[in-house]
Amino acid sequence: MIYIVGIGPGNKKYLTLNAIETVESSDIVAGSRRALELFDIKEDKKYILTKNLVEELKDLVINNKNKTITLLSTGDPCFSGLLKTVLKYDIAKKEDIKVIPGISSIQVVASRLKISWEDYHVLTLHGKEENRKILLNLIKNNKKVIFLPNNLKEDIEYLLNNGINPNKKITVCENLTYKNERIIYEELNNIAHMNFSYLCVCVVE
Amino acid sequence: MIYIVGIGPGNKKYLTLNAIETVESSDIVAGSRRALELFDIKEDKKYILTKNLVEELKDLVINNKNKTITLLSTGDPCFSGLLKTVLKYDIAKKEDIKVIPGISSIQVVASRLKISWEDYHVLTLHGKEENRKILLNLIKNNKKVIFLPNNLKEDIEYLLNNGINPNKKITVCENLTYKNERIIYEELNNIAHMNFSYLCVCVVE
Repeated sequence: MIYIVGIGPGNKKYLTLNAIETVESSDIVAGSRRALELFDIKEDKKYILTKNLVEELKDLVINNKNKTITLLSTGDPCFSGLLKTVLKYDIAKKEDIKVIPGISSIQVVASRLKISWEDYHVLTLHGKEENRKILLNLIKNNKKVIFLPNNLKEDIEYLLNNGINPNKKITVCENLTYKNERIIYEELNNIAHMNFSYLCVCVVE
Repeated sequence: MIYIVGIGPGNKKYLTLNAIETVESSDIVAGSRRALELFDIKEDKKYILTKNLVEELKDLVINNKNKTITLLSTGDPCFSGLLKTVLKYDIAKKEDIKVIPGISSIQVVASRLKISWEDYHVLTLHGKEENRKILLNLIKNNKKVIFLPNNLKEDIEYLLNNGINPNKKITVCENLTYKNERIIYEELNNIAHMNFSYLCVCVVE
């Protein structure tokens, strides 16, 4: 059996008991170094994933057919997460997978800003080129949006090049739940010239 | 300080460490009997909420001004949850609130069906009359939707009375993470004549 376990935004406090128990009862636990550090796991159970995610996961699954494997997924595996990758690249069959939900960064943003995300259009630009245009139209129509940028600088440029007012303010939430968490409310104009890590979520009111 | 703490779908396994620690360090913990049972709380810290939620919460907050109060919220407080109620009825000021996210039933559904919820329109009909029409239009346009019904029987009737094919199949997920969890894939026609608890989430493909 392969468990895809959501670990939340990155801070240990956001782990569920389910995630912790599943990791404890697995033979192998695979994830980024950062993800693995959240758990107390024996060295010989750890499998560190690096850059060639798909190939590494395929090897792992093929070479450990009778073992219980946990794959750690940042945030929620079912929102812009690892589930889609596993299914898309046939890393495991649907019937051999169990998914344990985790807290998504979308939810952390909502909790920080004290907003209800049912009042927002929620979308990810990660690997979803077509969503940029949807985002553009939502903003043009003054809709409220929470979005995961693909590349924040490029995404903002796209909005500015397509008629969005450069003085429009948005909120950028960076490194949520980490020590260097930062929440900035600023004009698109200025955001375009700032540097952010890849761990960002944006809110448009 | 008032903490609004998400407790997830109802099974203890879905609690985050953050939720458990916040409950432990609070002077008073308020919630439904079912929510309070998930935690190991001394009797004198418990405050059981019943039917008159708004009045009970107002009394609680006014009478315990210098105490740390936790309000337990099913699912995620920021999705069709307690945050909105607290703000709407001025139960506490925004600056006196901290929110701890929890696993939403939307996420549990996605994990059970092994789908990615960024590919779905997510909406709640709880206290959002206008969303019924939005749901109707999404289904008419063959969009994929995950929705929280307000009253499942009435919501289905509305869809059928407004031109949706009675043979269209939808998935109803009931009592998720409870012992009597049930997932049914059935024609609207038949769903309309079945009985479900109020703990339901529906998926339209």
